[in-house]
Parts: sequence; C-alpha cells; structure tokens
Amino acid sequence: MNIRSIAEQARAVSSACARLTSEQKNQALLAMADALDKNRDQIASANQQDMAQAKEKGLPSNLIDRLAFGSSKIDSRIESLRKIAALPDPVGQEFWHREIAHGMKAKRMRVPLGVILMIYEARPHVSVNAGAFCLKSGNASILRGGSEARSCNELLGRLWQESISSQGIPAEAIQLIAGSHQDINELLQQNDCIDLVIPRGGHRLIENVVANSRIPVIKHFTGQCHLYVDDKADLNKAIDVALDSKCLMPEVCNAMEVTLVSKARLEELPALARAFTDAGVQIKGDKQVCERVPEASEASPEDWTEEHLGKVVTLGVVDGIEAAINHINTYGSHHTDSIVTDDPTRAQEFVNRVDSGVVLVNASTMFCDGESLGMGAEIGISTDRIHARGPMGLEELTTYKFVIEGDGNTMSNPREFTQ
Amino acid sequence: MNIRSIAEQARAVSSACARLTSEQKNQALLAMADALDKNRDQIASANQQDMAQAKEKGLPSNLIDRLAFGSSKIDSRIESLRKIAALPDPVGQEFWHREIAHGMKAKRMRVPLGVILMIYEARPHVSVNAGAFCLKSGNASILRGGSEARSCNELLGRLWQESISSQGIPAEAIQLIAGSHQDINELLQQNDCIDLVIPRGGHRLIENVVANSRIPVIKHFTGQCHLYVDDKADLNKAIDVALDSKCLMPEVCNAMEVTLVSKARLEELPALARAFTDAGVQIKGDKQVCERVPEASEASPEDWTEEHLGKVVTLGVVDGIEAAINHINTYGSHHTDSIVTDDPTRAQEFVNRVDSGVVLVNASTMFCDGESLGMGAEIGISTDRIHARGPMGLEELTTYKFVIEGDGNTMSNPREFTQ
Repeated sequence: MNIRSIAEQARAVSSACARLTSEQKNQALLAMADALDKNRDQIASANQQDMAQAKEKGLPSNLIDRLAFGSSKIDSRIESLRKIAALPDPVGQEFWHREIAHGMKAKRMRVPLGVILMIYEARPHVSVNAGAFCLKSGNASILRGGSEARSCNELLGRLWQESISSQGIPAEAIQLIAGSHQDINELLQQNDCIDLVIPRGGHRLIENVVANSRIPVIKHFTGQCHLYVDDKADLNKAIDVALDSKCLMPEVCNAMEVTLVSKARLEELPALARAFTDAGVQIKGDKQVCERVPEASEASPEDWTEEHLGKVVTLGVVDGIEAAINHINTYGSHHTDSIVTDDPTRAQEFVNRVDSGVVLVNASTMFCDGESLGMGAEIGISTDRIHARGPMGLEELTTYKFVIEGDGNTMSNPREFTQ
Repeated sequence: MNIRSIAEQARAVSSACARLTSEQKNQALLAMADALDKNRDQIASANQQDMAQAKEKGLPSNLIDRLAFGSSKIDSRIESLRKIAALPDPVGQEFWHREIAHGMKAKRMRVPLGVILMIYEARPHVSVNAGAFCLKSGNASILRGGSEARSCNELLGRLWQESISSQGIPAEAIQLIAGSHQDINELLQQNDCIDLVIPRGGHRLIENVVANSRIPVIKHFTGQCHLYVDDKADLNKAIDVALDSKCLMPEVCNAMEVTLVSKARLEELPALARAFTDAGVQIKGDKQVCERVPEASEASPEDWTEEHLGKVVTLGVVDGIEAAINHINTYGSHHTDSIVTDDPTRAQEFVNRVDSGVVLVNASTMFCDGESLGMGAEIGISTDRIHARGPMGLEELTTYKFVIEGDGNTMSNPREFTQ
C-alpha cells in the first residue's frame, strides 16, 4: 500500500472539497443513501463473510456484535445520510462579527479543516457516517476501519467513490483503506498532507496514535460516567435517570457506570438497588452499600475506574456533593456525568465544578448525543479538551479564518514612508 | 531539574486556577503590573547581564534586539497587564444555547484548558504576557523561555509568584523555568499533566516539539504574507497598504513579504516600486519586474518562500486574481494575506479561496493583531488549523463543557425497566 500517495491524493483534492457547493455535497450523500439501499444484499453478504471469518478467528462476541451490518443497521445509515444531507452546510458560515479599528469590519468564516484521517474499530456503520460528516463539512477523508470489516468496507468504499463521482466530486475525496498497523504509523507521519486524526476505539489504539502521530489528534476515549443522587434528589427521578443511563445502551461510551448516593439518602438505597436488580442490573457495592443491599457484591478497585460495558453498576455512598464532585473528577474519565437534585444551587455547583465534556442535571447520560443536542448527529464524542469536547458534529470538523474588510486602511500614517 | 514534579504541581493547582474569581485574577495582574514598576531597576540590570552574555557569545544582533527589556518595554508590559485585567473573564461564559429534546435546555460553558506549557525564544516580554493570558483564562502555566534570557526570567518568575500569592493564588499557578532541551523533551511526555503546548520561535524548535510531543500542540510558525494588487485596485490605497504592511514592523510574522501585481496594472509597477525604494525597501523582482524597475534585483527561489524579516520585498507580476490566489495558497504560509481591489466580487473571491488564518481586503497586514481585532491582546498567532487559527486571545485558551438541564428526563420510557 502506497501510503504517501494516499495522503498526497487526499491533500490534492482537499481544496476542491472545500469549494463544493452544498447542493453537490447533499446530492452525493443522497446518492450514497440510494446506493446502500440498492446494494443491501451485496453489503449483507460481504458483512456475513467478515462475520464468519471473525467467528473462525474466535473474536469475542461483543466485537462480533459491533461488526454486524444487517438490514436494520443499513436502514438507519440510509436515514442518517438523508438527515446529514438536510443539515445546514457549515462551510462559509460567518460568526463573531466585530467593528474594529477605523470602523473596519471583522468576522470569522468557517472553513474545512482540510484532510481528516479517521481510524476506527471494525464497525462498518462508521465508514458511512465518517465519510458523510467529512464530505458535508468540506473535508477530504481517509478512513481506516478495523481489518475484521475488510470485505464490507471495500464495498462501502467503492459505493462512496461511485456516489461522489456521480456528482462531479473527485473520487479521492473519500478513501477507505485497509492497511496494516505499520501503514497506520506511516500515515501518522504525513503531517504535511493530513490536518487531523480522529482515533476511535480501544485505549491501546488511541495511545499508539498519540505516541506516534505528528498530526494533531482528537481522542475518542471511552467513558467512565457517573450519576450522583444528591441529598435533595427526588427518588423517582433518580430511579428513572439511573435506569435509563445504565440500561438503554449499556455498551456505549456514555452509559453510566457508577452511581454515587449522598449519605443523607441512605435509607432510600434499598429502593434504588431494587430498581437496578429488577431491571437485571448486577450491583457492585462499597462497604455501606453491601451492608444495606443483600444483592450487592463487593466492588473491586477496577469497578470504580473501568467501564462495565454491560448491565453492571458500581454503587457507592458519599458524604455529599463535595465528595461526589471530588470522586467524579478523580476517578471518572471527564466524559459525561449527571446529578439528580431539586436544589438549583447544588445543581449549579455540580455543573461548575465537574470537569467533564457533558454535565447533566436531572437527565439521563443518554442525552450526551449529537442528535439529542440538535447537532444533527455526531461523528463521535471527543474526550479531548483541544478543538472539540463532547459530541462532535459538522461545525467541529471545521476551522475558521478571520476576514477583515477596510478601505485602504493602514496602522501608521502611510505617508511617513513616502516623503 | 525535576520535570515530573513541575508538571504534577501544575496539574495539582489547575482546578484551583479554574475556580479563581475574576477579582482575584485581576488583582493579581495589577499586583504584577505594580511589581514590574517597582522593580524596574532590578529587571533592567538582570536584562543587561543577559544581553552582555549574549553579546559575548556572539549572538546575532536581531536576537539581541529581541532580548532587550528596557524601561519602555517594561512600560508597555505594565500597560498590557492592566488591559488584560480589564478584559471580560472568559471562564464560565455561556454560549450556544439550544432547546433540545423534551424541551430541555442545552448550552456550552467556557472552562479553562487546564495546564498550558509555553515554549518560546529569549523574549522576556513573553514571560509577562503568557503568564497573564494563562492566569486570566483560568489555566495553570509552565513557561519556558529561551536560555539567553535566564537572569531576567528568573526575576520575572519570582515577581509572578509573589504577585499571585498576594491574592491567595497558589504560587505554582505560574512556573517560569529555564531547563535544557532534554528537559523540554521530558516535559513533552507529561500528557497526563499538561493539556496544551504552545511553541513560539524558530522552525526547528517547533518541528522538534511536534515530533516529540504526546501533548496537543498549537504551532506558531512565522508568516510568509502576501499583498495582491488587483486589476481594480486604487493605486494610492495599494501603495499605502503595501508600505504599512512592509515597513511598520518588518520583523514581525504578519509583515508582508511578497507583493503580487496583476498584469493589468503593469504600467503602474514603476510608481509602486518607487514608493518602496523611497521608503528604503529593497526590491527583489521577477523577470517582468526587473525589466521595468531598474532598482530591482532578481529574486531567488527562496525570496518567494522565506521571510525577509527586514525592509526587503519580493515583487512579482501575475496574470490576475486566479493566479494570485494559486500563488498565495502554494507558496505562502497560510498566515495573513491581503488584496487591494475596488471590486467587491473579486474581494469575495479572494476571501473565500485564500486559505489563510487572516484574509484582508483593502487593509494592511498589520491588522492581523489581537488588539486591533478587539480581543484585548494576543498570546500569539496560531498557524494551526486545530482549536485556534490566527490571533489567539483569552477565549482561545479555553475549552467548553456541554450543560444539559432536565427534570428527570430519560430517553426511553424508564418504567419499562421497573415493571
């Protein structure tokens, strides 16, 4: 695989990508939606082939689940492509208007980042989503999905290139590649051609990218998310929020892993615990929880710091809001954390001091989601502090330029130079 | 030098820095302004010592000029500290308000980045500016200035720590360190303690940081800035803008290095050239310029791609706006570029297609400047596309968190779990 040439081709088409009209981009997204629809049998069979090989290799079942790309998942990608086509085009949007020195006008204008490299696990739906987000935001993209999804990704790559070519967009605007780990490391050196790397996947993959990349990285680590049930919490709301945060999609990064209960609510611990067990959630408890909740087993140190990624919750008692905030900032992953309280002052304290990408008050951690936030959808959830934090949509795949308009203005009296 | 302990101390105080009141931060900035004023003799003598050593070592005169930190430079830092104290506090500012699912409210809230490492050349005024910007934006900072400024920086570091301590701010909130290149490389590995590196200085320094850092970097490269004199330019405006862009501060990154003239204005080339030479600017010309302008000498390939950093301009003729845009995007450094034209359509074309951090219409490149842009001042001018591009002020030293406020909202019907 000629990595340098892939990077150079992406760079070469990036200025054409930046100048595409909204109409061209939207029509290409709709063409891809149609292509997925027309080729669903072929896609399913390529995916079956990948799945069979993954099973032969003995991959864990949760990885095989993620690899699956059947008809309902294809439907949801078709719907998503149509939604992204309907979103406003971020390129050229103007913001931050100022009147500056001499009455000149200044503003910022959104422009694409340029070339985005996305490295992700074997989830074919990301090949559709990431391509769509990068294209709509005017970026050229290089998409490297997990090798277990190779057959399906090859087909999706071809469909992407046919769909965009049909609208006069250079085929190299979306390059889906397989490529070894050695190839990835070589890609990460192409900082003259690639402007941003977004790695999504396991901790080791992301650490490897950070250690080896000369290109800026926006990390997408997983989430160790908390719910804090405050002294002033309404118990019913607490139970609703806890169960939704834990059970709706236990495998996603914004699923709640740890519930902390203020010691002022100790007597209600059994009711909360019962709600968890009734919903099929296994409880790992601290000492106080284990004393009061017979269903709980003792939590190990890892239960406080590592994701369960399943219907397991770590349940603990804290002295109050101060202790809860310190616990979350110390043991959490600064991803998504929620408080249930009826006291606005305590809610504000939690919002101000919990240092996470998304902080919620009386709401499920499931709402940490680009679609819920009105961003249309998301390319991922950044756990970084630089450039974008939390759910990343189209705007987060752009940068800006300052535009200053004058009438021959100078900072000096220019004539002093011409005497 | 115990690098790990410096990084850990910065991380340890960063949450306290994030929670400082505006009053505390502003009083600390004013205390530093007073300290500079009271200690100006000591500062000047430390600076004299550094300058003497630099001369002994035979450093080039432009580096010695940058090292100078005499009374007028101290005055301008005092003024700058007072201005930064008067700026609005970015921490806690709310923006991006949305009503989302279920009528819940979502917004983004600005929060500090955390710990910022600034690596810069031997310019003592940066030790004042960078500390002030980081402090006001709620960040802890580690400032590593060039070793030639060591005596002056040691004193400034002490004054910083006294000034912030006097307001109850932990002294480790601003750490000025000397430290070898080996120490810098070790600092660049502390990605668990440091959130951002801003290198300012020569190309080699910045490339070394990019190659070795595990921490996100916002690069501050120098600028190869252009002025394009369009077919429809007013010659007087063109001359005014050209001279101001070239002569006001020829040594700064946003000084203009290359002027391109549309071939439609060939007959006015001699007048423009004369204005340059009358202002003491030496002209390096392309073939067409050399034919028409006797004062011009032939431009070398480097004259088109490297900064002159002095009263020298590269002057060339292009076929028109299309050629100018292509030239600027190919040979420029995507920093600051300006067009002089009286045609709004062509101005818009230039603005849309020149891929630079700051694009100006009928205005001097000198206006690429945080103060002119109403950002109060600037910590530097980013040549990066990620996080911040162009002049960086206080807001650019922050990130955000999403805040979502509900009333017990869940994404599912929660009762389905409790039946």
